[in-house]
This record gives sequence, C-alpha cells and structure tokens, in this order.
Amino acid sequence: MKLTVLGCYAATPRTMTNPTSQVLEINGHMFLIDAGEGTQVQLRKKKIKFQRIQHIFISHLHGDHFYGLIGLISTYMLLNRQTDLHVYGPKGIKEIILLQLRLSNSYTGYNLYFHELESKESEIVFEDEKVTVSTIPLDHRIYTNGYLFKSKPGLRKLKIGAVEDLKIDRCYYSKIKQGFDIELENGTLVKNKEITYDPDPIESYAFCSDTYYDESIVPQIKGVKVLYHESTFLESESHYTEKTKHCTAKQAASIAKLAEVQTLILGHYSTRYSDITRFKTEAEEIFKGTILNADDGKVFEL
Amino acid sequence: MKLTVLGCYAATPRTMTNPTSQVLEINGHMFLIDAGEGTQVQLRKKKIKFQRIQHIFISHLHGDHFYGLIGLISTYMLLNRQTDLHVYGPKGIKEIILLQLRLSNSYTGYNLYFHELESKESEIVFEDEKVTVSTIPLDHRIYTNGYLFKSKPGLRKLKIGAVEDLKIDRCYYSKIKQGFDIELENGTLVKNKEITYDPDPIESYAFCSDTYYDESIVPQIKGVKVLYHESTFLESESHYTEKTKHCTAKQAASIAKLAEVQTLILGHYSTRYSDITRFKTEAEEIFKGTILNADDGKVFEL
Repeated sequence: MKLTVLGCYAATPRTMTNPTSQVLEINGHMFLIDAGEGTQVQLRKKKIKFQRIQHIFISHLHGDHFYGLIGLISTYMLLNRQTDLHVYGPKGIKEIILLQLRLSNSYTGYNLYFHELESKESEIVFEDEKVTVSTIPLDHRIYTNGYLFKSKPGLRKLKIGAVEDLKIDRCYYSKIKQGFDIELENGTLVKNKEITYDPDPIESYAFCSDTYYDESIVPQIKGVKVLYHESTFLESESHYTEKTKHCTAKQAASIAKLAEVQTLILGHYSTRYSDITRFKTEAEEIFKGTILNADDGKVFEL
Repeated sequence: MKLTVLGCYAATPRTMTNPTSQVLEINGHMFLIDAGEGTQVQLRKKKIKFQRIQHIFISHLHGDHFYGLIGLISTYMLLNRQTDLHVYGPKGIKEIILLQLRLSNSYTGYNLYFHELESKESEIVFEDEKVTVSTIPLDHRIYTNGYLFKSKPGLRKLKIGAVEDLKIDRCYYSKIKQGFDIELENGTLVKNKEITYDPDPIESYAFCSDTYYDESIVPQIKGVKVLYHESTFLESESHYTEKTKHCTAKQAASIAKLAEVQTLILGHYSTRYSDITRFKTEAEEIFKGTILNADDGKVFEL
C-alpha cells in the first residue's frame, strides 16, 4: 500500500502549498482521493502514470477538495483516454462537471460514470475481487464522506520448496493456494498449512477529511492499518473547530487512539501555520502509535 | 501600460507551463484577462496585489481559459474581500460559478456581478473616465470574444514653472488642465498651450485568443499599440488550424501587418513545441514591427 500526498493544506492553494488530493495504491488499484485545484499538475510533478486512475473519490464539494476535477477530466479527454473513469462524490458533482463540458461543447471519448452519494449511512461504493471501498459519513458544514479502503485477503502462498520435495503436480497448485489439503499418489494426506504460507495481511486505509470531532466513526475504522485524519488546527486555535467543523491535531489523535489504528497521518493544515511539526507534537500527547505529518509531495510506503 | 503574462500555453496545464491568463495594468486599472487553472497561484508567484482586480474578462468557455476562475472567486471570499468584482464572459459563466457556490453552501461577502455576453457584434462592456473595454468577436469552435482596452486621453499637464511665474491662482488649475486659455488680472490672455503639456498618449491593447485567421477584426484593432494574438501552431502544423480554429504564427503576423499595430505579442502555443523562439522567427517573415514571444511569468512594460 502506497500513499502519495499531492496536497494536504486547507482552503486556498498558494505558491508552496496545495489543497487536498492524494493517490492511494492498494492491491493493484490506483485511486485518486479528492482533487483540489492544481491536482493534474501535482500528478505530473510526482510522475504518476495518471491514466492508470480509474476511480476518483471526492469527499465533499468545498473547492479545496474538487476544483481540480474538471481540469483532470478535460486533460484525459485531450490525451485521448479510452478507459472508463468513475467519479464518486456528493450529489451535484455530475451537474457541475457536465454543465462545464456542455458549455465548452466537449465530449469525453471515454465513458465517464458518476456515482452520486446522498446517504448518511455508510455504504459500499466500489467492490471487486481485490478491494472494497465504503463511505465514512463525516460531520462537516456540508454533506461529506470519508472513504475506507480495504484489500481483500489474497490466496495462500505456496511453500515452493515443500511442494517440489513432495513432487506435487503443478495442476494442484491453484487448489492448494485456495486452502485445500492434498492427497499424494501414495495416499498420504498433506495438510494445507504444511505447504503454504498465510496470504498477505489485509491492507486498510481510512481517509477522514474534512470533519468535526466525531466518535461515531470509530467502530467503522476500528483497527485500520492507516488513518488519515484532518487536523486543521493546533490547540491554540481549538475555538475555531466548532464553527468551521474541523478538528485539532489532538482530536485527530483521540480518534486514532479510540480506533486503535496502527498509523495516524495528519493533514489538512490551516495555511496560517508555517511549522507543521507542531501537529505531530501535540498529537503525540494523546496517541501512542505511529504519527506522521503529511506534506505536499510526500510518499508513504505503508 | 504593463502586461504580466501568467500563462500563455494551450490546452492542459503542465509542470512548466500554464494555460491562458494575464494581468493588464492600464491607466490605473488592473484587469485580469482569462483565468486558466492555477491562475491564483500564478498571481501569488508574481506577487501581484490581486485584491486590486475588479474586472475579469473571460474570452470563452474552454477550460484552459477559465477553470481557474472559481478558485479565484472562492479565495477572494476566504480573504474576506469587500470590493465589488465584475466578471465578463460568455453566457453560461454565471450558471457555472453560482452552481458551484450553491453546492458548497458558500456566499461571497462581496458583490459579484456577471456581465454575460451573447452578441456577435462588438460592444462596449466597460467604460469609465479612464478606459474603454470592448469585445472583439472572434472565430473559434465556440462563442469567443477578444477584448480591446483603450485608455482615454487624460487631462493636459500643467507646466508648473510657467503657471507659477505668471502667478496664476490655483483655483484655475483644473480649468487649465481641461484645455482652457486663461485671462490674467492685468487682462493678458495666456494661451493654454503656453502653460500645459499634451496629455499622455492613448494606450491600447487588443487581446485576441482563441481564434481562427479572421481579417474581419482588422478594422477594429487598426493601429493599436499592442496586439496579443494567438499563434497555436507553427507552419509545419498549419493543417491543424482549420479543424481546431486556431492560427499559425504567420497568420498572427498577417493580422498585425494588416492592422498596422506597433507591437505584436505571440502566445497560446501548442504544448507540442518545446522551443517557442521559432514562433517569432516565422512571424518576422510577414510583420516588420516589434514581435515578442509571450512566456509564463513574463512582464512587458509597454
């Protein structure tokens, strides 16, 4: 699992900081999460093969999370993209994009599918044999969802030395990987565990931005490997959280602690702060797991 | 008159190039012309006091000319702008902006006025005591206008030494600047020309992008001081101009020649070209006045 942070600052893009957007690579998929203005340029700067992105998840319709989407969709058009593109986001996102395409008399050469969200309950929005993506309803000024990405357990892994020693024919490998025991030609039963390793552990990543402090999300994200949780403010500005429906670093850490996650990544910093190391320092007072500060362009191998 | 080119490349923004946007300072006004994605960051990079912009002129609704507008409008909101903002552009632009503000539950604290254009004839869209701005209808794939900016002749300038020597009372200065002769207390008539200099010459700037080769614009832009004319292609790609409704550098130069402008600025280069000096070289075969290549971040003191 690999996370590339294209931008992790709140509000307006500036010379040195970018609004929210990140690329999550998980179990063979490349997902784009949010797309603030400048996302396509950030994708190029990070040399990401962005034609590989087939699914874009938008948290909410504040500009710093989606103003770069229309530009990316247009660029795919100019690059003569053929592959389907799926956009998940709040109701209204389809109208915004299609209005702009219509007024520019443009048509995508690829299929563009919108999956508009309205539910206040968590729902699975994408699923295949490798990954499940579900919404995490958040408490913000407008309708907002985080997203929970979970890889599915893969096949068991052959102990190749063991199966060769036992002279097991290759035609049984598929069955063995699926977990079946095997009977040798001499009638001996070989237990699956003797000739396989466990599959890769399940990867899980929870993206929670933007949101007010909300413990109701804890059961859903319980035990995730990595939690990205917004931390717009430091304690000194905690009085802003209620009106703006954002969190402090400490509040993000409280959620991480309650959810018993392995790693907490902080981001969505207010642009008032020039030193983001303080976010980690404040969060460490609460949460004892790994805490990382996101920063534009940062790549996390998780 | 000062022109700051924020971006002058066609189609998609890239790591090193920006789509169309420029700031024209003329006779005390600061106008923004077009606003491709990333315009607000370019304004910051150039350290332009962009709260001073009160009028934004959009040529057409292709993304590389306006996708940065909504971000700029939102940023003005976050910066607590109070001053009125006027946006001039094709019909539909108001719907695009208001839809996005509505869905993000946002309201500008400043007055945001839209002046939607539909006419295929030139019309004056802005006028005050200093400047006139009129549309230049262009021939592109969708409804498009260039803009002609003309300063109005100012007041005559006092020869301050002369008026003081003649002991003319200050209460007459305003009349003198307006061009009136003056009668001294001893009955002597002083001709206005003896105590004033001519006003500043009229500044004029024509922005013509995007457009197919179209001689019908020549009468309107005849004799302008500076013409910015799109030149998407070099001669080697001239076969693309008809379908895309763009121009070559040579065609831009032909318009400049016919219109007898003083200075031609080339821009809106296709991103296929890495060496933009060739645009100037090709244009010089046609037009004998000054030819300049626009480039992102370039400032022209005109």
